[in-house]
Amino acid sequence: MQKSEQRSDQTLVERDQTQYQASGEALEQEPEQNVDQSLSQNEVDRTYLLEAVKLAKLGYGAVSPNPYVGALLVKEGEIIGRGYHQYAGGAHAEVNAVQDALDHGYQLAGATLYVTLEPCCFRGKTGACTDLILKSGIQRVVTAMEDPNPAVAGKGHRILQDAGIEVVTNLLADQGERLIEIFSHNQRYKKSFVTLKAALSLDGKLATKSRDSQWITGEAARKRAHYYRGLHDLILIGKGTLLADNPSLTVRYGYETKAPTRLLMLNNFVGITEEIITQYHFFNINLAPSLILYDVGNPPSHSLEALLKAKGVEVVPLAEITPQSILEYTFNAGFMSLFIEGGAGIYDAFISADCVDQYLLFYGPKLIGNPKALELWQSSSIEQLSDAPLVTIESVELLEESFLTVARRRR
Amino acid sequence: MQKSEQRSDQTLVERDQTQYQASGEALEQEPEQNVDQSLSQNEVDRTYLLEAVKLAKLGYGAVSPNPYVGALLVKEGEIIGRGYHQYAGGAHAEVNAVQDALDHGYQLAGATLYVTLEPCCFRGKTGACTDLILKSGIQRVVTAMEDPNPAVAGKGHRILQDAGIEVVTNLLADQGERLIEIFSHNQRYKKSFVTLKAALSLDGKLATKSRDSQWITGEAARKRAHYYRGLHDLILIGKGTLLADNPSLTVRYGYETKAPTRLLMLNNFVGITEEIITQYHFFNINLAPSLILYDVGNPPSHSLEALLKAKGVEVVPLAEITPQSILEYTFNAGFMSLFIEGGAGIYDAFISADCVDQYLLFYGPKLIGNPKALELWQSSSIEQLSDAPLVTIESVELLEESFLTVARRRR
Repeated sequence: MQKSEQRSDQTLVERDQTQYQASGEALEQEPEQNVDQSLSQNEVDRTYLLEAVKLAKLGYGAVSPNPYVGALLVKEGEIIGRGYHQYAGGAHAEVNAVQDALDHGYQLAGATLYVTLEPCCFRGKTGACTDLILKSGIQRVVTAMEDPNPAVAGKGHRILQDAGIEVVTNLLADQGERLIEIFSHNQRYKKSFVTLKAALSLDGKLATKSRDSQWITGEAARKRAHYYRGLHDLILIGKGTLLADNPSLTVRYGYETKAPTRLLMLNNFVGITEEIITQYHFFNINLAPSLILYDVGNPPSHSLEALLKAKGVEVVPLAEITPQSILEYTFNAGFMSLFIEGGAGIYDAFISADCVDQYLLFYGPKLIGNPKALELWQSSSIEQLSDAPLVTIESVELLEESFLTVARRRR
Repeated sequence: MQKSEQRSDQTLVERDQTQYQASGEALEQEPEQNVDQSLSQNEVDRTYLLEAVKLAKLGYGAVSPNPYVGALLVKEGEIIGRGYHQYAGGAHAEVNAVQDALDHGYQLAGATLYVTLEPCCFRGKTGACTDLILKSGIQRVVTAMEDPNPAVAGKGHRILQDAGIEVVTNLLADQGERLIEIFSHNQRYKKSFVTLKAALSLDGKLATKSRDSQWITGEAARKRAHYYRGLHDLILIGKGTLLADNPSLTVRYGYETKAPTRLLMLNNFVGITEEIITQYHFFNINLAPSLILYDVGNPPSHSLEALLKAKGVEVVPLAEITPQSILEYTFNAGFMSLFIEGGAGIYDAFISADCVDQYLLFYGPKLIGNPKALELWQSSSIEQLSDAPLVTIESVELLEESFLTVARRRR
């Protein structure tokens, strides 16, 4: 299954264009958005870049395997063009910003381009952005960060500088990096980015000792989890979660986007009956694509395999079913990111293999207690605190009665 | 041991007066602090009340068993007096604010008094504040909330209204309530207020399975814990924590205040040797007062008891050592609040007995895992989520690499 095949969805493109046009209208109606002239040049630059970051986010869920990028053109203190990368295969943000300015009758000579990522200097599907900039008359380019791809980093900036354009970069490196963290991870490590999402009691339990887990967190937490689902290419569950919860794993709560592929990781097909395949949401590919990775040593029966194929479910054998082998497959198949929904066995396997890049821990307002209650990392062998996996806690946020902690594995 | 005996400490009073004078100086130097006249009367009132809340907090650690109270006098848009309750037995906030205004040569006729709590109407150590207000010429009184004591609530306001003073109340009830939560709890339930403080990994562990726990959280989290220590009258530990950590349990990190009494809860004296009593910080009452509550059925040996008394440690037998019996003793002895430092056995006993009013959970950037690792509520019998103790999560806050969640037990 090639991921790139899934991203030419017309509905998504139309939705993005609508948003984009709405943003274009706002431009004409709100000239007061322009930046206070008493600010220093550095402050002005950062303010416009933050605006470009906002534009970039309009590509929500549609740009993989590309990064989110936003661009803004400013001339004589006035925003004259806005653009963002709308969908994989579509025009780059810079191209869209230039087109927006031209559509509104502006001349680009002397303008400053604000862009959240170093402009590309290779001629891909859409032509090099550096060429466009050089031809346009743009005089100054301000970027949040360099391209994280080691083979590119800095080349785009250098081409522009060598042509006499003033270039300011790394002005918003933190926000720039966060915006493209999946892309950045893909470029640097050639691996899918892995997010583990879990709902926990305040004392870290996934469920009571009787396995009661619905619901530990509240509506606002579950809504936010759907937002994060939509940022990923794959949503992973194990057999236990499939059989216990019959989840649909679609992106809902108003975050509808191109449906991420649902991935079931199986050591064997025991318990996956024809009845379950016929009735459970996971096997209904009208909801979203479905993929099963299983141990080649424990294949499905011929009739089960035939039924799965008839339902349109992709079934792929791997030499072994480990987090590492799963991630090797997913990156090669074009899935840039993996969202782990659970359950406890999958959490345990990925944490033990040190294969989690980001934790989204939703804590609900309860205490559960008891060592027999279900927990996040059952098989941990940690004896000394100095051996415990360290993360960086990026943020904590109240979500009505619950809260969310976002943490990244320290590398 | 009577708690009120501990609160006539001259150093604390001097420190508070210094702070208070500093605040008086700021009054003369910063007339621009006065409130923007374009705000509505309600907004103006809330702004001044928030300022009074800030003043109230200057009584940090010194007012028990009384509440924190702040007061502000405003006349013709100018702040003319500031006051707060500085220490138990000292003047009320209203008295200090009036005195401050008079000291600076202001006339009170026509002024508005802002105070975080309904003025008292009983003649205690300092005279009724309602009498003072009526004599002063103050024309309007704005308060954050009514007195939570059911025997008082509203009477102070009514006396003022009946005398023709305009009274606005409940304008900042949430902040007002938080400011005096210990006092309020004491008044409503006739019990000591109980705070449980714990340092946890992200997955809720207190220590690894080898009992390694130093440190899960960082410096900023430990500093904040000292701030909270200073808000309480008692700091509770069990025998395990005493023997394992030899803690001093003093308030440090710049939050120095009248030292809270250290409380050791003991089922028996096994392991409490003469050597330990001679050497461990807990038994050095030059650091802070020390109190041992123990099971009357398992008293110390005569020589041990003599040594404890010689060291100045108070030793009190109780008919049984349970959270309920401990709390009955502490409230009757004048300790208005109890801060639980641990360890796991004490946490477990107080959570199981549903005797925790507030949780301060400091989470560090680590995963520990494993059901054999030490946890907060080991003996929990929760099977169904609907039986799990529910809390209200009041706040979450990043503290450098760690974060703090403040939660209150729902009643």
